[in-house]
Amino acid sequence: MQDLYPTRCTGEPQLLARSEPVVRRAWEPGAPLTKEQIEQFGRDGYLVLEDVFSADEMAALQAETGRLLGDPAALKDETVIAEPGSREVRSIFEIHGQSELMARLAADVRLAGVASYLLDDQVYLHQSRLNYKPGFQGKEFYWHSDFETWHAEDGMPCMRALSMSVLLAENTPNNGPLMVIPGSQRVYVTCVGETPDDHYKHSLRKQEYGVPDDDSLAELAHKHGIVAPTGKPGTVIVFDCNLMHGSNGNITPFPRSNAFFVFNAVSNRLTDPFAAARPRPDFIAARHVRPIVPVSGHLEGELA
Amino acid sequence: MQDLYPTRCTGEPQLLARSEPVVRRAWEPGAPLTKEQIEQFGRDGYLVLEDVFSADEMAALQAETGRLLGDPAALKDETVIAEPGSREVRSIFEIHGQSELMARLAADVRLAGVASYLLDDQVYLHQSRLNYKPGFQGKEFYWHSDFETWHAEDGMPCMRALSMSVLLAENTPNNGPLMVIPGSQRVYVTCVGETPDDHYKHSLRKQEYGVPDDDSLAELAHKHGIVAPTGKPGTVIVFDCNLMHGSNGNITPFPRSNAFFVFNAVSNRLTDPFAAARPRPDFIAARHVRPIVPVSGHLEGELA
Repeated sequence: MQDLYPTRCTGEPQLLARSEPVVRRAWEPGAPLTKEQIEQFGRDGYLVLEDVFSADEMAALQAETGRLLGDPAALKDETVIAEPGSREVRSIFEIHGQSELMARLAADVRLAGVASYLLDDQVYLHQSRLNYKPGFQGKEFYWHSDFETWHAEDGMPCMRALSMSVLLAENTPNNGPLMVIPGSQRVYVTCVGETPDDHYKHSLRKQEYGVPDDDSLAELAHKHGIVAPTGKPGTVIVFDCNLMHGSNGNITPFPRSNAFFVFNAVSNRLTDPFAAARPRPDFIAARHVRPIVPVSGHLEGELA
Repeated sequence: MQDLYPTRCTGEPQLLARSEPVVRRAWEPGAPLTKEQIEQFGRDGYLVLEDVFSADEMAALQAETGRLLGDPAALKDETVIAEPGSREVRSIFEIHGQSELMARLAADVRLAGVASYLLDDQVYLHQSRLNYKPGFQGKEFYWHSDFETWHAEDGMPCMRALSMSVLLAENTPNNGPLMVIPGSQRVYVTCVGETPDDHYKHSLRKQEYGVPDDDSLAELAHKHGIVAPTGKPGTVIVFDCNLMHGSNGNITPFPRSNAFFVFNAVSNRLTDPFAAARPRPDFIAARHVRPIVPVSGHLEGELA
């Protein structure tokens, strides 16, 4: 398969134009988003959806989050990632495989239905995780395009995937919220340096390869600016797989957490990695495609 | 001298009520601030003054900043502080002693005049510095009350001092701006652990003593909230010596810098340290009182 997005191979970083659309299906009556929302997603590469879940749905999700974070020993060991230099849990991967409520959340028409529309295909979960950025000592997450890693290390061929972050705690400007460079999804920043074996064992804590260079980041940030979408619990932030994003640390006492789902188009299933010797394990990058049938109704209710 | 603010002596942190006013002189006609500003300073412990300096004054200050940061070898070695784990300059102390323009800035009636009014006394410079938080890798500065350190390590008896930060680059919500807990100046958080000898040699890079505990910080932040004043170059942030403040790291490409001046009331001159074996050196905490005669007019003009 031709590699449309070569990375981690040359000595000099490059900015390559994206050759495929961000939105795959224009607005039409019955779409799950407004025309303006769909156009904004295409232009900015992200979208903030407020009050997507009811108060009691959020209470259930927060209780489930507390349960998962509170008893990591009950989870598959490899799916639990700690902060650098600490044993505090930073992320739990494959939450859709370890929690029925999280699986139900991912399949909800408010998430999977929207993803399927924007990508104009059936979707499946490429990755899911629960992110927890503690108060006082929360570490930064440096700038990156998710797609660069998914392409290089997982073998995702094209930019036909997107992420959804369901906020479980309030994101304020001060507690290390997600920062994005709107419009950066239209440029592919190639990264320098070959991927070491078993890179994921370190990169989930602190990324050292697949890191964009200072000049490219400065160019993008000066051109497009930086935005930090904030919101209450229940807000969903949707963003394109190639949007440049990161987050600062968090010294406030207010922790930040979200449930994070990556939806990939079924037609964009993984091949061999484009810049790594072996693919990453299934709990980080699903190699079995299980198309989602979107589910309507209350998260804890009967199936619609 | 009786120690009104014991710290670094007991095993348990305490929240002590402040026994002295934040504003020492109420508004009266001819005051350099409005009545509302003075009341806000008393209530919140900080004040944001916009457009204090003209565009050409700012250009001169920025050029001088570039000159100082660009040639640290020309400065007194001990006054130049690097980032932890790096040689990048984080702060330059005693800038009023190493730059005529910075000395003139400190003495300006827009700074020293305001300080003198709020403290109702002649003032002198307890400390001055140029702070530079680089882009991409700027480190956080953890929560602290400046007064706790000045009292413990420098022997500042009372809370009759304030700081002014003159913004030299834009502070946005995203580039690690100063965060404050409004109202926290009315509570003194005692810290745990004795001050080691020559603590300042490490604490200017990364503070380990004089650090408030999590419970006290959470109590203050939940009660008062957290505010991150932002502003263009030329904005001046005035804050009380006991205001709890800190800043997150900065992964954006946008560096942050400010000129920082601490004005102390002449009547509040330093005594022996209250919780350290030896006082810190003069470039960090001036032991010679040189009362400032405030100067009017353009920063680069003739004396008024």
